[in-house]
Amino acid sequence: MANDERPAVAFLGPEASYTHQAALSTFPPTTHSLSPCTTIADVFTAVQSGTAHRGVVPFENSSNGSVIFTFDLIGDLHGTHPDILVCGEAYVPVKHCLLGHSIPNAIPTTGRNVQFDAKFTNPLAVPRSDLSKITKLYSHPQAWGQCKAFLDTYLKGVERQDVSSTSRAAELVAADPFGGTAALSSHVAAKVFGLDVLAESINDHLGNTTRFLVIRRRDSALAPQEDKHKNDKQDKWKSLLTFTVDHAHPGALAKCLTVFEKYALNLTSINTRPSGVENWNYVFFVEFDGRKEDDEAQGNVNKALNDVSRICKACSWKGSWKSRLELSTSAV
Amino acid sequence: MANDERPAVAFLGPEASYTHQAALSTFPPTTHSLSPCTTIADVFTAVQSGTAHRGVVPFENSSNGSVIFTFDLIGDLHGTHPDILVCGEAYVPVKHCLLGHSIPNAIPTTGRNVQFDAKFTNPLAVPRSDLSKITKLYSHPQAWGQCKAFLDTYLKGVERQDVSSTSRAAELVAADPFGGTAALSSHVAAKVFGLDVLAESINDHLGNTTRFLVIRRRDSALAPQEDKHKNDKQDKWKSLLTFTVDHAHPGALAKCLTVFEKYALNLTSINTRPSGVENWNYVFFVEFDGRKEDDEAQGNVNKALNDVSRICKACSWKGSWKSRLELSTSAV
Repeated sequence: MANDERPAVAFLGPEASYTHQAALSTFPPTTHSLSPCTTIADVFTAVQSGTAHRGVVPFENSSNGSVIFTFDLIGDLHGTHPDILVCGEAYVPVKHCLLGHSIPNAIPTTGRNVQFDAKFTNPLAVPRSDLSKITKLYSHPQAWGQCKAFLDTYLKGVERQDVSSTSRAAELVAADPFGGTAALSSHVAAKVFGLDVLAESINDHLGNTTRFLVIRRRDSALAPQEDKHKNDKQDKWKSLLTFTVDHAHPGALAKCLTVFEKYALNLTSINTRPSGVENWNYVFFVEFDGRKEDDEAQGNVNKALNDVSRICKACSWKGSWKSRLELSTSAV
Repeated sequence: MANDERPAVAFLGPEASYTHQAALSTFPPTTHSLSPCTTIADVFTAVQSGTAHRGVVPFENSSNGSVIFTFDLIGDLHGTHPDILVCGEAYVPVKHCLLGHSIPNAIPTTGRNVQFDAKFTNPLAVPRSDLSKITKLYSHPQAWGQCKAFLDTYLKGVERQDVSSTSRAAELVAADPFGGTAALSSHVAAKVFGLDVLAESINDHLGNTTRFLVIRRRDSALAPQEDKHKNDKQDKWKSLLTFTVDHAHPGALAKCLTVFEKYALNLTSINTRPSGVENWNYVFFVEFDGRKEDDEAQGNVNKALNDVSRICKACSWKGSWKSRLELSTSAV
């Protein structure tokens, strides 16, 4: 198959980012053309416009919580991406490393006054190199909070510069000829940018995982792995719903959630974002076990959606997809 | 009263920050000693340890949503701030300005290809000075997203540097003798750091407001304005509750929320954060109209708390306080 015949998959770049890893785990590059985007909004635009067949975006991290940019784009407050539906998910274990230029024959840094906090589930990483010459660190803003114990022990007080991704952090360090900078980034990025791993698995918690969503256009045909009828009926499926409630109608949220109980649909998460219309009004994002059956109007998910739409305002189904959670649990 | 006898109020600094404005609006400096802290966690620690009588921290912004650091500290996942309760709130209108060094006698910059987006509720600000020499902008990460139209129109492509607060951004610009930098910051910061207002009210939305919480230690005596019995019985009070639910018990969340309906307690917001214990388990933060009556065990809030604690795990009341929302609405 020629390169330009492969379906395009847009992902939040740059290459070697965790989102790239999520895209690779879902769409083999032999059959898909993976294309990095600069922002999450660009991924949505590529899929909405049809430039890309699928998109891959980060959704939540097990330690840091929601990626609000993705929520706001799915909520589509401004009507710019009305045809986007979720059709898949992927879990990628986040194992941060300290990347930089190791100093030959130097004695690796040892931590002073190491008080390892019992709340952290990952033993404190031991540097492989001398870290005393590092004067500046680059990373994505979320990474600092995931590597507190290591940073407090070995790199306390060192200047931190936020950049757009952990992969971009590695790229900047690779471009620094003096070796005074280091990046909190991934093993894959070390390979891509030719950096040394100065310390490995520096995150506070084992099992730190980021969850990604695969998005499609509403009118796009489903691939076999996205289609319930071509999958094991025992597979677990998830659905996402957004809605707003009338603030003059106090019990509406509880009533909406009771609908899911009535139809035995297990809620797996609930999130809120500002509605963008009026201060202190919110869009609710409710995720639950179950799948909207396009061909079975009397399925439980369809019944629940009907009931919810009668209670709340602007109720919108945002897709159903096969759960990959079990895969990630065994992979972490 | 001597300075050191005034009760200390810790706030997220530096001076001239929006949190400082919130602290000033609640605690007059004639009767309180206001003390800036470097991080939100430092404010919690100052109050928990008794170093400060009260603390003031940002909680949510009407456009950008929750301040997750504050939620995680209130949730107290690691048991470091077990005695913190919320006892007040304050709303501060966020009116960003572009601060810098104006160029004498220069012709103010005019925007090219101005396509003002109808979704923005604040008319596009007009610069008072020439902005063409600005090569670098400083601000808090949340501010960029709040000033999209202005930045896209007049400062497209100019390098942006994230700093810890809008006030710190102004401080950095004040220290730049060459005048090639500018800050997205406040009127108050312009005065404090002696900068020129190059453009005023550059945020996309009118009424962009940040909500702050006042925190106290559980054993700290209530001031008259914090005490229901010294206030008008018609005043509206709010309460905050945190809890986790058993994931083996699907309907628990809906059941918890139904309790509030049963006792006619209007839910005003619901938020979730990772529980810190197990991946994809969450702490729920539920805010509702009503006040826990310490002396009336049979009040509706106490009854609801009792019911909820029987359904969910780790249920914890995090305080009750007088709503200031009406004040903010009229002030915006």
